[in-house]
Formats: sequence, structure tokens, C-alpha cells
Amino acid sequence: MLIRSVGTDHDRLPHTGAKARDDHEIPAAAIAVPDAELLHRVLVDKKTARVRLVLGARKLPDADSANVVGEVTGRERPGEIVLVGAHLDSWDLGMGAIDDGAGVAIVLETGRLFAALPQKPRRTLRVVLFADEEHGTEGAKEYARLHTAEAANHVAAAEADFGGDAVYAVRWLGNPAMRDRFAALARLLAPLGVERQDDSAEPGADVTPLLELGVPILDLRQDGTRYFDIHHSANDTIDKIDPGVIAQAAAAYATAAWAAAETDGDFGRVPEALRKEHR
Amino acid sequence: MLIRSVGTDHDRLPHTGAKARDDHEIPAAAIAVPDAELLHRVLVDKKTARVRLVLGARKLPDADSANVVGEVTGRERPGEIVLVGAHLDSWDLGMGAIDDGAGVAIVLETGRLFAALPQKPRRTLRVVLFADEEHGTEGAKEYARLHTAEAANHVAAAEADFGGDAVYAVRWLGNPAMRDRFAALARLLAPLGVERQDDSAEPGADVTPLLELGVPILDLRQDGTRYFDIHHSANDTIDKIDPGVIAQAAAAYATAAWAAAETDGDFGRVPEALRKEHR
Repeated sequence: MLIRSVGTDHDRLPHTGAKARDDHEIPAAAIAVPDAELLHRVLVDKKTARVRLVLGARKLPDADSANVVGEVTGRERPGEIVLVGAHLDSWDLGMGAIDDGAGVAIVLETGRLFAALPQKPRRTLRVVLFADEEHGTEGAKEYARLHTAEAANHVAAAEADFGGDAVYAVRWLGNPAMRDRFAALARLLAPLGVERQDDSAEPGADVTPLLELGVPILDLRQDGTRYFDIHHSANDTIDKIDPGVIAQAAAAYATAAWAAAETDGDFGRVPEALRKEHR
Repeated sequence: MLIRSVGTDHDRLPHTGAKARDDHEIPAAAIAVPDAELLHRVLVDKKTARVRLVLGARKLPDADSANVVGEVTGRERPGEIVLVGAHLDSWDLGMGAIDDGAGVAIVLETGRLFAALPQKPRRTLRVVLFADEEHGTEGAKEYARLHTAEAANHVAAAEADFGGDAVYAVRWLGNPAMRDRFAALARLLAPLGVERQDDSAEPGADVTPLLELGVPILDLRQDGTRYFDIHHSANDTIDKIDPGVIAQAAAAYATAAWAAAETDGDFGRVPEALRKEHR
């Protein structure tokens, strides 16, 4: 199976990825946009084409990996958790700088800023670096399995998995009755140029299992103009990260996490009907 | 020998090219900018680096190739020639769409427009598609060798070898006494958005041997913003050509060639001192 890469770029670097169906017996590959266009022209012109395909990828046996978890303990309600997460694994044809090295940097910086505060926020910040997002979100599923009993203690969860570019908006997914509390959090982000957009966050892959358990989602929307041109390709290298820009993203995540950790009341639980929409 | 690619792009596609020195015994390769930066970081950090290099290039024996020449005969002075040229060869890791398929298209379109004119211009238009520009300009040298005797009949020469983007300026290289004649030609290009810049053209590789013989050079400057990011790399594919933009370039070449072919007087010869500067 040959498909056209998801990128909008015109670089001859194909994007890898996972198939949604478990058809491991069908070898599949994406080809770069210029090559897909060439193949299209040949097929339009000649009705038939001969493609020489060398696939170096192979399926290896499962191996152990681990989520990496760190905390800054809350000063008043240490058992209540604000979770910020990113994922450790990446496609190995590039460095994984934007997917998801950038997210790891953003949530680690959030943790560093919390640790450096002279007065810790009321609640605990938990930074989770998930294993295996790309190959089946096993790390996220395992986290949810292990923490089902304390899911009700998770006040909010945010995931950074959309590169290192600027945060331009904040959305949420939670109990509509708590809208004012969310609006107060969103106002703190305004000085960073972050707009409150609406109440319909799109939960990332690693926090979706928490949403299933009713945990409210904070969705910090990052500029994705370049994202799909770079991710999952050999072009995902550290030079694609602008230190000044990712600093804004980290500041937005840290501010949102601080507001969730410090706010007097919590954000309630996500109603069952909203959880279902993202199943 | 490893060098950083000449491109300003951050794609992981190395640019090929030729060495100026004839050190065939030293294998040489360019690496993409992100890889050069990685190597630099490793060397700064560790003082040493180990690179695994697989070079697929190899030197083959010389083989015959040919310049391709076509003419539209002038109505009054068929022995006087306005030459527009481009080159047929390209680096084979891409299609050679911008280097130099675009130039070939521009000069062929110039020829097509001349052939379609109800009244042919006074002088002959000669379209030359040079062989072997990339590997030593053997086609251009052979053309000059074969036509040395009629060099004085070449009124002007222009080369299209800078991609398919817009022509923004025109320069020339010739006898300073003929400046007014050049200025009159340049005025015809103004409606295409082409500016008369100055009198110091940079002759391309394939017309330099003609300059040596005293032939005045018309230099139609094309937008090179993208050029060095694409040329000599796997990214040099047809999708990099915008049909609307290359049409402007072809119109500029055709207009300049028409003006040179139709003008009453010629542009004289390039003084020896100016020829020497470009040797």
C-alpha cells in the first residue's frame, strides 16, 4: 500500500506513521508529495506504472519501556493533581525534536518553574513523560489503568504534543457548570497573546484515557503551520525549534498549570456525554 | 571531505555539486544543513566524531553528448545572431526541473514565440541547449570553439540558468559606448516589472566562452530566493515550477531577445578589459 504523505510541504522526504487497522501483513509506505504527484501524472498518462520500492522498516518484538513521572508537591492539597504530559518516543528517521522533544521540553520547563517558585501552588503538579505514544499509546493506557482509583483526584490534564511553536489559544473540555472558573484561568493567559476560544478542547492521544475517567482537559493550542510538514519525517530535527518561541509555549503551559493548581475550587468532572464524543 | 550544503534550507537533503579542484582521488560529499549543525555540535561537545558515510556516486568514463541548436532565421540580417541558451544536463538525484529544465523551457518558449511572429525580427534567433554544463561546461566550450570565426556575428547572448522564478532586473556587459542602446532595450522590459539595474552583468557558465570572444551579454536576473535551496538536490522537481511565474520569465527573455534581434544598430564588442574580469 502506497499513500501520499500527510505533509503539505514539497520536500522529497516521506512521512512515516502508523496504520489505524492492524493489517500487519500488508506492507505500507507513504511517499513524499512530489513523488505522489509524479506517480499520479504517470498513471494519468500511461494508465500503468512500475514502482521500485525498498522498505527498510520491520516489526520487532515488544520490549519494556516506562513512563517517567515527576512531581512538585502541593502546599495545601498534595493529593490533588494537575497533570502535564508529553511523550518520550519518536519516529527514528529524524531526531523527534518537534514530535515530541518540544513537548517534553515544555512540560519539563513547567516542572522546573514550579520547583523554583518560592511558594508552591496549593495542588501537586505531576509531569508525565509517556512511553510509546506513536505505537499504540500504551504508556497512556497504562497510566490510566494504574491511576483509575485516584482519577477523581486529577483536577485537570494538559498534553504538549504539537511541536515547539507558539500557543495562540486555550480551550477546555469539562463540566459546563464550571465555565467561569475556566474563563478566570484563560484570562491569566491573555498577556502571553493566548486567546480563550471556546469550550471544545481536542484531547491529545495521551490524555484521552484520563478524559474517559472524567478528568477535565486543558487544551493549549499551538501554531501548527509547520507541524505536519516536519513531524514523522527526517526533517524533525532540533534546528526546527526556535528557543524564543518555545519559551512562550512553556510560559503558557506553566501559567495554565499554575492557575489550575492554585485555584480555590476545582473544575468538576467531565460529564459522560462529553467523554463519549471523544471515544 | 565533508562540506555543509550550500542551501539555506533546513531540509535533510544534501546538495551535490562539482569540486573546483580536480582531486578525483579525494571522495567528497556535502551534508544537509541540519546534519552539518549536528556534526558541529558533536565536535564542539566531544572534540571528536565518528561518521558513517555511504557514497553511491561514482565516476564513469566520458561519453558523447551534444548541444542542441535551433534557429528562427532573421528577415534582413540572417547572418547576425542573437543567442539564448540553457543547459540540458542535470544532477540526477532530482528531476533537474529548476536546474536547468526551467531555463530550457524559457529559451524554447522564446524560440516558439519568435517562430509564431507574423513578421520575423531582422536578425536570427539561435536557441542553444548546451550539453554538460554541470560537469565542465564542455558543450559551451565546444560551441565557442566551433563558432570562433563567426563570433563577431553574435550580436548578444543571454543564458537562462537560474530556475523558473520571476525576472526582476536586467543588466548587461558590453561596450560602454553602447549604453543608450542597452537602455532602450531595457525600457521594453519595464512593463513586465523588470528594472534596469546597472551595466555589470554576471555572465553564466555557458556564455562565458562567448564573452571571451567579445560577445555582449544580456543578463536577465531571476528571483533566486529559493534557487539554492532546491538546485542540485532531490528536491529539484517539477512541482517547484509555478507556470504563471515562469511565463513572466519567458516573456522577459523573449522581449529582450526580440529587442536585440530587431534593433537597428548592434551592441558593439566587449572591450578586452571587461572580458578579463570574468576570466
